[in-house]
Amino acid sequence: MFPKNFFFGVSLSGFQFEMGGKDAVDDKSDWFLWVRDPVNISSGLVSGDLPEDGPDYWNRYKEDNEIIKDLNMNAVRIGIEWSRIFPTSTTDIDVDVKRNGDSITEVTIDKVALEKLRKRANKDAIKRYRQIMEDIKSKGLHLIVNLNHFTLPIWLHNPLEVRRYGVENSKKSGWFNSEAVVEFAKYAAVVAAEFGDLVDEWSTMNEPQVVSSLGYIQVKAGFPPAYPSFEAFVKTMVNQAQAHARAYDVIKSITSKPVGLIYSFSPVYPADSESAKAVEKAMYFQNYWFMDMITFGKIGKIFENSEEVREDMGRKLDFIGVNYYTRMVVKSVDSFPGWQVLGGYGYGCAPSSKSLDGYLTSEFGWEVYPRGLYDISKAIYDRYGLSMIVTENGIADSTDSIRSYFIVAHLKYLGKALKDGIDVKGYLHWSLIDNYEWAQGFSKKFGLVYVDLKTKKRCLRPSAIVFSKIIEERSVNKFESSVPY
Amino acid sequence: MFPKNFFFGVSLSGFQFEMGGKDAVDDKSDWFLWVRDPVNISSGLVSGDLPEDGPDYWNRYKEDNEIIKDLNMNAVRIGIEWSRIFPTSTTDIDVDVKRNGDSITEVTIDKVALEKLRKRANKDAIKRYRQIMEDIKSKGLHLIVNLNHFTLPIWLHNPLEVRRYGVENSKKSGWFNSEAVVEFAKYAAVVAAEFGDLVDEWSTMNEPQVVSSLGYIQVKAGFPPAYPSFEAFVKTMVNQAQAHARAYDVIKSITSKPVGLIYSFSPVYPADSESAKAVEKAMYFQNYWFMDMITFGKIGKIFENSEEVREDMGRKLDFIGVNYYTRMVVKSVDSFPGWQVLGGYGYGCAPSSKSLDGYLTSEFGWEVYPRGLYDISKAIYDRYGLSMIVTENGIADSTDSIRSYFIVAHLKYLGKALKDGIDVKGYLHWSLIDNYEWAQGFSKKFGLVYVDLKTKKRCLRPSAIVFSKIIEERSVNKFESSVPY
Amino acid sequence: MFPKNFFFGVSLSGFQFEMGGKDAVDDKSDWFLWVRDPVNISSGLVSGDLPEDGPDYWNRYKEDNEIIKDLNMNAVRIGIEWSRIFPTSTTDIDVDVKRNGDSITEVTIDKVALEKLRKRANKDAIKRYRQIMEDIKSKGLHLIVNLNHFTLPIWLHNPLEVRRYGVENSKKSGWFNSEAVVEFAKYAAVVAAEFGDLVDEWSTMNEPQVVSSLGYIQVKAGFPPAYPSFEAFVKTMVNQAQAHARAYDVIKSITSKPVGLIYSFSPVYPADSESAKAVEKAMYFQNYWFMDMITFGKIGKIFENSEEVREDMGRKLDFIGVNYYTRMVVKSVDSFPGWQVLGGYGYGCAPSSKSLDGYLTSEFGWEVYPRGLYDISKAIYDRYGLSMIVTENGIADSTDSIRSYFIVAHLKYLGKALKDGIDVKGYLHWSLIDNYEWAQGFSKKFGLVYVDLKTKKRCLRPSAIVFSKIIEERSVNKFESSVPY
Amino acid sequence: MFPKNFFFGVSLSGFQFEMGGKDAVDDKSDWFLWVRDPVNISSGLVSGDLPEDGPDYWNRYKEDNEIIKDLNMNAVRIGIEWSRIFPTSTTDIDVDVKRNGDSITEVTIDKVALEKLRKRANKDAIKRYRQIMEDIKSKGLHLIVNLNHFTLPIWLHNPLEVRRYGVENSKKSGWFNSEAVVEFAKYAAVVAAEFGDLVDEWSTMNEPQVVSSLGYIQVKAGFPPAYPSFEAFVKTMVNQAQAHARAYDVIKSITSKPVGLIYSFSPVYPADSESAKAVEKAMYFQNYWFMDMITFGKIGKIFENSEEVREDMGRKLDFIGVNYYTRMVVKSVDSFPGWQVLGGYGYGCAPSSKSLDGYLTSEFGWEVYPRGLYDISKAIYDRYGLSMIVTENGIADSTDSIRSYFIVAHLKYLGKALKDGIDVKGYLHWSLIDNYEWAQGFSKKFGLVYVDLKTKKRCLRPSAIVFSKIIEERSVNKFESSVPY
Repeated sequence: MFPKNFFFGVSLSGFQFEMGGKDAVDDKSDWFLWVRDPVNISSGLVSGDLPEDGPDYWNRYKEDNEIIKDLNMNAVRIGIEWSRIFPTSTTDIDVDVKRNGDSITEVTIDKVALEKLRKRANKDAIKRYRQIMEDIKSKGLHLIVNLNHFTLPIWLHNPLEVRRYGVENSKKSGWFNSEAVVEFAKYAAVVAAEFGDLVDEWSTMNEPQVVSSLGYIQVKAGFPPAYPSFEAFVKTMVNQAQAHARAYDVIKSITSKPVGLIYSFSPVYPADSESAKAVEKAMYFQNYWFMDMITFGKIGKIFENSEEVREDMGRKLDFIGVNYYTRMVVKSVDSFPGWQVLGGYGYGCAPSSKSLDGYLTSEFGWEVYPRGLYDISKAIYDRYGLSMIVTENGIADSTDSIRSYFIVAHLKYLGKALKDGIDVKGYLHWSLIDNYEWAQGFSKKFGLVYVDLKTKKRCLRPSAIVFSKIIEERSVNKFESSVPY
Repeated sequence: MFPKNFFFGVSLSGFQFEMGGKDAVDDKSDWFLWVRDPVNISSGLVSGDLPEDGPDYWNRYKEDNEIIKDLNMNAVRIGIEWSRIFPTSTTDIDVDVKRNGDSITEVTIDKVALEKLRKRANKDAIKRYRQIMEDIKSKGLHLIVNLNHFTLPIWLHNPLEVRRYGVENSKKSGWFNSEAVVEFAKYAAVVAAEFGDLVDEWSTMNEPQVVSSLGYIQVKAGFPPAYPSFEAFVKTMVNQAQAHARAYDVIKSITSKPVGLIYSFSPVYPADSESAKAVEKAMYFQNYWFMDMITFGKIGKIFENSEEVREDMGRKLDFIGVNYYTRMVVKSVDSFPGWQVLGGYGYGCAPSSKSLDGYLTSEFGWEVYPRGLYDISKAIYDRYGLSMIVTENGIADSTDSIRSYFIVAHLKYLGKALKDGIDVKGYLHWSLIDNYEWAQGFSKKFGLVYVDLKTKKRCLRPSAIVFSKIIEERSVNKFESSVPY
Repeated sequence: MFPKNFFFGVSLSGFQFEMGGKDAVDDKSDWFLWVRDPVNISSGLVSGDLPEDGPDYWNRYKEDNEIIKDLNMNAVRIGIEWSRIFPTSTTDIDVDVKRNGDSITEVTIDKVALEKLRKRANKDAIKRYRQIMEDIKSKGLHLIVNLNHFTLPIWLHNPLEVRRYGVENSKKSGWFNSEAVVEFAKYAAVVAAEFGDLVDEWSTMNEPQVVSSLGYIQVKAGFPPAYPSFEAFVKTMVNQAQAHARAYDVIKSITSKPVGLIYSFSPVYPADSESAKAVEKAMYFQNYWFMDMITFGKIGKIFENSEEVREDMGRKLDFIGVNYYTRMVVKSVDSFPGWQVLGGYGYGCAPSSKSLDGYLTSEFGWEVYPRGLYDISKAIYDRYGLSMIVTENGIADSTDSIRSYFIVAHLKYLGKALKDGIDVKGYLHWSLIDNYEWAQGFSKKFGLVYVDLKTKKRCLRPSAIVFSKIIEERSVNKFESSVPY
Repeated sequence: MFPKNFFFGVSLSGFQFEMGGKDAVDDKSDWFLWVRDPVNISSGLVSGDLPEDGPDYWNRYKEDNEIIKDLNMNAVRIGIEWSRIFPTSTTDIDVDVKRNGDSITEVTIDKVALEKLRKRANKDAIKRYRQIMEDIKSKGLHLIVNLNHFTLPIWLHNPLEVRRYGVENSKKSGWFNSEAVVEFAKYAAVVAAEFGDLVDEWSTMNEPQVVSSLGYIQVKAGFPPAYPSFEAFVKTMVNQAQAHARAYDVIKSITSKPVGLIYSFSPVYPADSESAKAVEKAMYFQNYWFMDMITFGKIGKIFENSEEVREDMGRKLDFIGVNYYTRMVVKSVDSFPGWQVLGGYGYGCAPSSKSLDGYLTSEFGWEVYPRGLYDISKAIYDRYGLSMIVTENGIADSTDSIRSYFIVAHLKYLGKALKDGIDVKGYLHWSLIDNYEWAQGFSKKFGLVYVDLKTKKRCLRPSAIVFSKIIEERSVNKFESSVPY
């Protein structure tokens, strides 16, 4: 069912896993600031939980990597924190930038600049990341490293200031400011230079559309800056696409390893027979608009299939990292933007209940919809023809009552995709251990492995053994027909 | 149980009830703008429902007033929309203002200014409000009129601009700007002059703390401007208190009728035996801080029982309008502000379920806690010694499955309050008919009377008959011991 | 909607209401014995609640009749307990009986026999029933009296003996023994002679098929003798039909008042498009088989539309008492008897939840299905052409959260029936006060009026006032469109 | 945690597993008759499912035994069907019986009688059981064989006749007739003689008190004969105890292997501080009365700790088979028998919900209460000092959402018992595959392995892998602290 060289593993990130122990705190990121703001806590925008009470991968990476190995996995994805590498600004270090209006069409970092940047970088952070990666490689694991996972250095993005003065008037407006594109390229250059010998595959960033949509549209989600603005949504999306493209160029100039991007895909289904147009629009908005920029170079006009092409943006992707959690169901509406996402399906369900279609929901209220993984993989492959890795798939399930079947069922559909010739190279479960789930804090438990946050003790959940067995057998056949959905 | 002259009736407001029919739209208020903003709708901050699809009290007031009469009631409270009376700014009309720093310590409106203001006022709006009030009086009902219920004219408050530029940089920042105090006094003067012959009791404003806390702290509630800021919370609270005091002076200079203020009270209970201090602090914050300003003239230092007294602020209240929906349960915490409101009680419950103490919850997720009405009435009376009217008490209950007992149980405790010598003069249920429930739109049904929003047809819910019977008998004795809670 | 002479009232019975106070115990019935049997209690067949802790209508009838009057009702149905009238056997008193095999084709009670029987009857019981009826009549209420409601004298039916020895070997096998038909005629004669001057309409028995099916088929319901036997089911059904016919003859020979029978009807609906045949069979079994016996004289072959006609059985019904609680949904099956009743609908739902069709369910787990009252009324009228009275309709709803709408909705459909020319003369709600609900004991609360079983204090539930208002207006129009189902 | 020679395995039985395939039907048992009786099906006493649609272990035992082996288990318990060995009566074959009144104090089966019996036995059945056992032994598994698991041959017990004529008047009254004791000894002799070379440990019978209490007290459970009678309950209990003792003697005269009995134990807990006496009484009734008979020889007076001792009954047990599913919570009551089992705990919960103490419940409505396994093991060991095997422990959990943790948690407490010196030699999970769950039919899924009843295909549930891993490691430490209860 799954070939021997298929990657089975887990995905981790920086901010959500690293802190929790001695010398592990990184207080230089926007999220670190954001989650302790008293107004945010009082308003319920964030949970009040603090990342420094986390699982401490920063110190316990050997133990965790050992668990990964023990569970028969052969791959792992980790993240690097920009704010750890550059706690202070890099804006003063000049690099060669070509601009076209507000667009950043080229960034070149010569040796001199690179050396300045490496000098500026935090030595302790680099040392620790190297130790982590060396430990991973020493265990024979395939290593995927992601450069940006939601967090930005405070010197680049201060969401409290954005709120106070408005995004247009703030100096530290993060991805809203196109200069962030340049700084990201600098950061990418340093990381590629430092860890190029250890990393098997690179990803520039994780779920850029989540950063933009939760930050600027669905502001009740509590993502910084929780500042409602369509303009900011669009601008930060375009700037992230440019940041990816410029980082792609820079990394490729340093190493020959594949460079991809991780994106949260959601297949869209019609609520009724009159919703075909709505599905098409929502699919474009949700899954294609951003990816079209960095593959076809098609830029900008969101809500319509743009024809404008930028040469400097096309063909900037070697593989696609597919994060899949659940689907969306939409119906056509007359009002802008032409579709409406229905509650009771996908992300819009009551926690620990059932969706309107009768599927179980997670403790997050997300519908378990395994078939969606097949459908979206097929759709992506048909459109882009690139190889893929499932870089995230998992469930908030503190009692581990659904996770075993969740894995079996999703792998069943992934096996079907392979059989149909869709080029998927691996499956990384989210996640190995319980983690800090952003605005939700520690309440959402995604770990195959439970973490006692007081003692930091790790303890397998049953599903870990089930996943391990599946990996060993490279097949879910043994379980398949007992799956209740 | 209830004396013959006890007021039994219902409360209505302007924005939530008036629109829905011919010539009934008022598009000049902040809320009108707010609820149709595409980003607000996309983000889920507001429902997407529009007030112009409402029950149309503007045209159907005779029918509704007739129902009130038919149900044996003898009192009604309505609201006047500032933006209807003054669709355009009144800032250019000079009145006599005394300031002390940012404080507005006196506003005097002489005859000349009053005439200018009356001329500026919208004649059609004044005519219709007069028709409504005359109809109410013709039916022998006691009339309470409230001047401000959440909404502000756009010329005074543009929440989209506040969000865009920040509250400090916005020109139309509503109650954040102390000049709003002066404008409110002008508006009060005109209304008092126009309707003084019809109104039995005045209320300046409704639930000022809800405007401030939902607008600037609990921003997920979707109240304008949904802009998190403790400073803005405090400043708008103080300015509303000043606005009340200045309006009080102005109205009293024109009519001799009682002038009160309507406030949403929530009794606070300890989670455990170590929460006494938390209860004290939360009671002060929730129920006393604002009221202390306009009774004792104690100004400003929130979170502590302030000793600073302003002569121009004290003794500005003839009666207290008590809105009561549910309670709060708190426990002590070390972190600011010293208490934490517990979920699973009061406002923090799952809809249509049960609270952690086993009480039913409404479709809003509010715990039905009838005893709280007694406790809070006693606490208010002990502190202020003023007469009270319950100006709101009701439940989102579309199937009318709880409302009958809700009324019986709350009136049981209100009867107990009367028996204990607490000076409560009336009980106005919220509300007669289903209404536009702010950011929640039409989904929350508070009406004793159902409204078909398509046809605008009214239809009694069973609880209306039960309430009517209780009014007739001035007692709930017949039902009391069958109450399941 | 409802004509002025339409009967609105309540139904009561003997065993379920009478006991609870001084001198009110009747220990001579099968049910009295049954509910205190230790094995029955241990097995969960019965609740362990005892009827002598009941509401005490025996002593409090004046108060309860007064409530009936106060609620605007104009009719009431009560029951007489056979075991009160005849605590000891009447088998030794000879009457004229014609037999044909096991069939009892005629019973004639001449004056001499009647006098002997009247002498044998318990004088105190007769006196008290007369007092109750006189009080009812003095209040201007229409009086319907039912002679048999589930209970039998122990001398006729000892369910513990039936269980011990088998129904065939037991001497006191109740309706299984055709001699019970003769004894019932004697009892009917005495009652007709004693109360003929007071009673407006007679019913011989209540829900004969419930006695047979719960006693001999659905034995988990805990009805005596809980003895599974198809033969006994059939035989007791036929004997009850004969008992009705013979009692009909006897009563008509004494008084000219209408004599009917009360039957629990359940309309049957198909689960799918292939269930038409199943519906037809189940309708016949559930609703027609018994009624066909006493109207058309068609006897016996259950599960098929029998053509055998007995002259002595036909045309023995002046009106039909319709008890309606909920519906049944069936699908066709190959196995006997050709249909299967589906769970999740009708009587087969989880308590206080929703049916598979989304209708609310009672605390008994019975689906609220108001339309069924229309459908079954129409079906009965089409088949028999007799006038009807709804003699029971109500809901186990201790919190009164559904009952108001339950009444409104059922009366809406009853109004539609009247409009369509169906001859329904009244609606008697089950019931005025909380009662002893057979094997379920006091846990199921059917009262418009709550009874504190300790103090016997009565207290209105809100729905009582709503029903009263509807009676006053002879219409549910005011409420109709607010009904949530 | 668990020693190397600890037995880990599964328990199966005959009737629940064997049928389903070619030549697998055994139509000679009481249960076979019982579950197809139309009245039983119509009444809901039984499900209507039929055992001949079962998993077909009769033909698929090799595949199933292979799965047992593959899952790292080292032990299995199976059952033999009396009615397969003796489809026709053995009463005519004389053996040497000593009687004392109704008591059977000794049964001796000499060679001649044994040969007659072996000749009478069904050769095909013996051959197939031998094949099954040889296959089990060939796989290196420890084999425990149980002789009687609920079912009796029809020639000994016809529950439909019992119902028809009463238990006292029926000739085929099963354990009610003390002659069944003699027949059981004959059956035991034959089985011991036939399979003595293959069996490692014997159990005479499974859960005798379930047969008696569900058959004669809790008759709604649908066990034959569903005939309420305390006398029959007591008599069948005593006769089963005698049957065990006589079979013990006979088996020991043939083989030297340990002979035990499997009993369903439920630890009893007090509802409050005043329930100590109730707990003592209920513990005696539920767990000790029967066991005292076959260990101490204490006979008969149930509900009191009897002092009468029968020499022929004492010391008849080599080990105790402990079946543990859940607990009981009781409170003291004045009425007989002095305690009341509370709903909302133990066996009395709503399916797939939570108990009143917050523990999860199974699809059977049984509370998951792992600590009870420790408590009852300790209580049994303290009283009897015999070695034990957990012969059943499992859960109806079709979605496998609880089973993994169910196993982990129960093994955690079993490990604690071992550590405390309690002599438990093994843990057999109920069960390997989904089975026919008596009156509940196939709706309750207890299998580690799912069975498609149409195709008979087996498919692992995830928990099977988890159990297998635990067996491999002889420890639950890896999972222990992630257990949510």
